[in-house]
Amino acid sequence: MWSEVIEGKLGKIAAFLAMMGEEVAQSTSFIKEIRKDGYLYIIGRVGSMEPQKVVAAIETAAKNQGIIDHGVYREAHALYHAIIESLHGIGRGDTSLGSIMRTVGLTFAVVRGKPYPSEEEGEWIAVALYGTIGAPIKGSEHEVLGMGINHI
Amino acid sequence: MWSEVIEGKLGKIAAFLAMMGEEVAQSTSFIKEIRKDGYLYIIGRVGSMEPQKVVAAIETAAKNQGIIDHGVYREAHALYHAIIESLHGIGRGDTSLGSIMRTVGLTFAVVRGKPYPSEEEGEWIAVALYGTIGAPIKGSEHEVLGMGINHI
Amino acid sequence: MWSEVIEGKLGKIAAFLAMMGEEVAQSTSFIKEIRKDGYLYIIGRVGSMEPQKVVAAIETAAKNQGIIDHGVYREAHALYHAIIESLHGIGRGDTSLGSIMRTVGLTFAVVRGKPYPSEEEGEWIAVALYGTIGAPIKGSEHEVLGMGINHI
Amino acid sequence: MWSEVIEGKLGKIAAFLAMMGEEVAQSTSFIKEIRKDGYLYIIGRVGSMEPQKVVAAIETAAKNQGIIDHGVYREAHALYHAIIESLHGIGRGDTSLGSIMRTVGLTFAVVRGKPYPSEEEGEWIAVALYGTIGAPIKGSEHEVLGMGINHI
Amino acid sequence: MWSEVIEGKLGKIAAFLAMMGEEVAQSTSFIKEIRKDGYLYIIGRVGSMEPQKVVAAIETAAKNQGIIDHGVYREAHALYHAIIESLHGIGRGDTSLGSIMRTVGLTFAVVRGKPYPSEEEGEWIAVALYGTIGAPIKGSEHEVLGMGINHI
Amino acid sequence: MWSEVIEGKLGKIAAFLAMMGEEVAQSTSFIKEIRKDGYLYIIGRVGSMEPQKVVAAIETAAKNQGIIDHGVYREAHALYHAIIESLHGIGRGDTSLGSIMRTVGLTFAVVRGKPYPSEEEGEWIAVALYGTIGAPIKGSEHEVLGMGINHI
Repeated sequence: MWSEVIEGKLGKIAAFLAMMGEEVAQSTSFIKEIRKDGYLYIIGRVGSMEPQKVVAAIETAAKNQGIIDHGVYREAHALYHAIIESLHGIGRGDTSLGSIMRTVGLTFAVVRGKPYPSEEEGEWIAVALYGTIGAPIKGSEHEVLGMGINHI
Repeated sequence: MWSEVIEGKLGKIAAFLAMMGEEVAQSTSFIKEIRKDGYLYIIGRVGSMEPQKVVAAIETAAKNQGIIDHGVYREAHALYHAIIESLHGIGRGDTSLGSIMRTVGLTFAVVRGKPYPSEEEGEWIAVALYGTIGAPIKGSEHEVLGMGINHI
Repeated sequence: MWSEVIEGKLGKIAAFLAMMGEEVAQSTSFIKEIRKDGYLYIIGRVGSMEPQKVVAAIETAAKNQGIIDHGVYREAHALYHAIIESLHGIGRGDTSLGSIMRTVGLTFAVVRGKPYPSEEEGEWIAVALYGTIGAPIKGSEHEVLGMGINHI
Repeated sequence: MWSEVIEGKLGKIAAFLAMMGEEVAQSTSFIKEIRKDGYLYIIGRVGSMEPQKVVAAIETAAKNQGIIDHGVYREAHALYHAIIESLHGIGRGDTSLGSIMRTVGLTFAVVRGKPYPSEEEGEWIAVALYGTIGAPIKGSEHEVLGMGINHI
Repeated sequence: MWSEVIEGKLGKIAAFLAMMGEEVAQSTSFIKEIRKDGYLYIIGRVGSMEPQKVVAAIETAAKNQGIIDHGVYREAHALYHAIIESLHGIGRGDTSLGSIMRTVGLTFAVVRGKPYPSEEEGEWIAVALYGTIGAPIKGSEHEVLGMGINHI
Repeated sequence: MWSEVIEGKLGKIAAFLAMMGEEVAQSTSFIKEIRKDGYLYIIGRVGSMEPQKVVAAIETAAKNQGIIDHGVYREAHALYHAIIESLHGIGRGDTSLGSIMRTVGLTFAVVRGKPYPSEEEGEWIAVALYGTIGAPIKGSEHEVLGMGINHI
């Protein structure tokens, strides 16, 4: 079923992973499916929605888990812009006011692979963020979702 | 499985529907699951990414299929802002430059329901958009995703 | 005279209150007029223009003085978005650079009421901000004004 | 009373004029008060909210009625930026999406004068916009307000 | 002298070319200097400042003159984002209001090369825009400048 | 040669100065050329890219070195808006996310003069910023450029 849903789309894979979280994704055949297709991925969580902390958390995870090459700036540059794009979906026009947003449980997913049949198109990277935003009172929050994609 | 994935979250339901599309959603038990929980939903497609056409297509579908009450402005106002929020995810900071974005196949989903246990929180509405964006050449495009949510 | 000026408009009432301030508003028949029409209102001041402090000051005042119901998230959500809208008028496209703005004496007003004749449209909330912005030198500043409105 | 309310503030004068409209402003002593203080002003209406039409309507009115000197670019430049600032209040972060906003009855006011006691500060210009925005259905709309200010 | 000024910086080269224009750049040793260093470049002009026309003019010139490979989407994607970044410098926060900007004589330059010593960093692309903006009256205009840079 | 390149344009002068830096500009005849034409200028450096620090550094330098009159608010106001415009070129749509940008060596230039033949147009001020932005690792960075201009 999953292959029919994802259709080899990098962004969908990242969004599904962020919304399912590691545990649920593992419990279905989703992870197996994307591994079979040769995609690299990471899933993580960050408890803040300050842009700089989200960026740092994703960059660190991506470097430590080998999604991007630590020593190559163009890879970090590609990832950075994909993260920024995903933050625009989270901020919904108010990214500038990010410091007044309070979140509980933001899950991120980064996926790297070759989404195009032509070899020349090379590798691309997708970042997805999913979480809840709101007042620091349990239940007083709603969902946010963002996704960005870039060539490496 | 689906109930475990969606956890009764309005935004996730909308995002899953937009990414799966009507046909795939019907072919799994996803639709059955969300109907059982009393959510109203619509799925549609719009072939343009000019903001005004996306807004009009969603508003028209939502009114015609009874997701919002045609004669109550507050419902239209709630839907409008949820659409605008979802467009920020699509535009990724460049919504202002929308006229130079060219897309093929944007799918939208609107979901209405009561995501909070307390009756006082009432109904909320979520809008998700998923599609591809790029040059008007087959294959020269990548994915975009946006989601917005509002109380009615 | 005031009824002719305001025409039952929520946003105008909030803007007039923010620009007049509590004392002047009390000294005219303005307050009496809007009370007669059943509007709830608060007026307050906040000495900073950091978005998060403005938001916190207004939210706290609105909850403490009963403009919104402390325990209902949809009311806080409605107020929050009305505040954010009013901040866009203050930031004039530079909200992102908010930390370099220095203000003396920002007055806010929140008004709650039913601006539509139809009962179904229910209650709406308006937020207005008025103050001066500029270098931290007396006289080296100019005015800013913002207003936002939302259904509750 | 009015002098106590306006306190010689250019932005307040413009905002009051835009919210009262020509007729109401004339019927009170407001106009007399600001004329006495040597302020130049114009009030007008524009039936569209496309940014370029609002800008054109205000620029034309300001030139034709002598608020700015037709032949001096710095005056047009000062007015232009004050208009753009006022539009940010109207757009509330979605100016980029202006083409999907539909309004009925936007009133503008432009005021020119010397708001500072020091002669060296010279003349400044303020622009205010007030109107309703919404679906093209009578009653399905709410208020918007914006104000910008600049030195000439 | 030029090598000392440019220091092998892609963005500087693009900005200098856009500000000098083809003719002046040819008349100095600037062009010779950057050709010697193996940079590819194009210079062109576009008479409009509507974002979509600027993008189209640069993309067309870049493809026709072989700065990017016509058949590889990742190259078009890299160029596109560099153009968008350069437009933010031109719009100065008001890109959303682009349709009210009127320009005379926008010159663009695109430069492709390897600005990093490490071979792994590969090729990057820089776009610069320089021109005048203002009312459609000769002399009633001022300068604008923008630059964007991306890995290919 | 320089007079042919700059054509008496305030923005070009500022951009050239920021990109050349004090030392290189002094070593060529560039400085001599612009002094001959009666332009006032300053060049400085700021090691941060937090907007408020950039603004403060430029304002302080401009006041201390007499580019603007310390006691006249309209001059500070003109400079402030020119700085903000130049920051939009640096932020490229992500100024809101400024806190996650890390830079090494931002050079600024401020130029004051009369770029228009007509005496009535008076003095204008241009601000340019040029530097590198990126991860805090030597070599992992790329260039940024911004320019703003305003009447005084």
